[in-house]
Amino acid sequence: METQQELNALSNGIMTSGSLFNHWQGHRRVTRRLIEIFPEEQLFEFSIGGMRSFADMVKEISGLSGIGMRGLVTGDWTSTPELDYRSGKSVVSTKAELLCLWDEITVEIDSLWPQIPYQRFHEVIQAFVEYEGYTLDIILYWIDNEVHHRAQGYVYLRALGIEPPAFWNRD
Amino acid sequence: METQQELNALSNGIMTSGSLFNHWQGHRRVTRRLIEIFPEEQLFEFSIGGMRSFADMVKEISGLSGIGMRGLVTGDWTSTPELDYRSGKSVVSTKAELLCLWDEITVEIDSLWPQIPYQRFHEVIQAFVEYEGYTLDIILYWIDNEVHHRAQGYVYLRALGIEPPAFWNRD
Repeated sequence: METQQELNALSNGIMTSGSLFNHWQGHRRVTRRLIEIFPEEQLFEFSIGGMRSFADMVKEISGLSGIGMRGLVTGDWTSTPELDYRSGKSVVSTKAELLCLWDEITVEIDSLWPQIPYQRFHEVIQAFVEYEGYTLDIILYWIDNEVHHRAQGYVYLRALGIEPPAFWNRD
Repeated sequence: METQQELNALSNGIMTSGSLFNHWQGHRRVTRRLIEIFPEEQLFEFSIGGMRSFADMVKEISGLSGIGMRGLVTGDWTSTPELDYRSGKSVVSTKAELLCLWDEITVEIDSLWPQIPYQRFHEVIQAFVEYEGYTLDIILYWIDNEVHHRAQGYVYLRALGIEPPAFWNRD
């Protein structure tokens, strides 16, 4: 990602670890509101153009965030039955369970994030054992992926005639 | 955004101005591919759930990026007929014009970005005269807004039976 010259200039960094944490948790608050406002049946079944349900997208976001944060800090990238989004065999099957899992991950990010030493952001890791990249880029990808799929949830809600929460409100 | 403590710790920054620039231009390459792959008529007319056409979303992204970058560097936030997305009176009416405008803004970001002193990212500005915030947060908002609306373009394409470009490929 950075050239050596840029790494030398990191004393002129424009973003701290704390800023990125706040940025991500702000996005997570918006995504949570989308899950909440979705009617339960449509959350798990509604689709446009053969795409996944919004619940399946949320399971992916939860898997990346939940397994990812633990992996970043502990080096252990194994999944749990709740977070196993890749097998399509997630045990989460209701909106309440999805929200409960969401809130558990939020608390886990709160507690794990400060354990990432700032140098780690510039180290190359093997995320989920198979994706090689700088830690910062990996985390930015998780956030982008969340914004991307959440925006698809916005379209689903509009198609269902439901006014979605404001995109800009991260409180 | 940052507390004083965090500002003092910016010598431990995790992202440089150059990294954020690369991140944004990577996203812009993906968005450009979406504009290119859209059939011209649907680009300007297709809609789901009463939402705007993807061309109108791209005009907003272009307005924020084009006017925004000039404003950040020069303090002049006035629009041009091409970038005037808020009036709904943009003079851009074909895919070729939309792509041409896109490419002009890309070149402009290339040339203006290095003129942002790194301290500026932590200064409060009045973006577009009316949105107060830290420069870094304002720029992150532009990028998030682009990812958000582009993802809605992904749903439009899927609904039209068209395979969209890969989200993860920023080359």
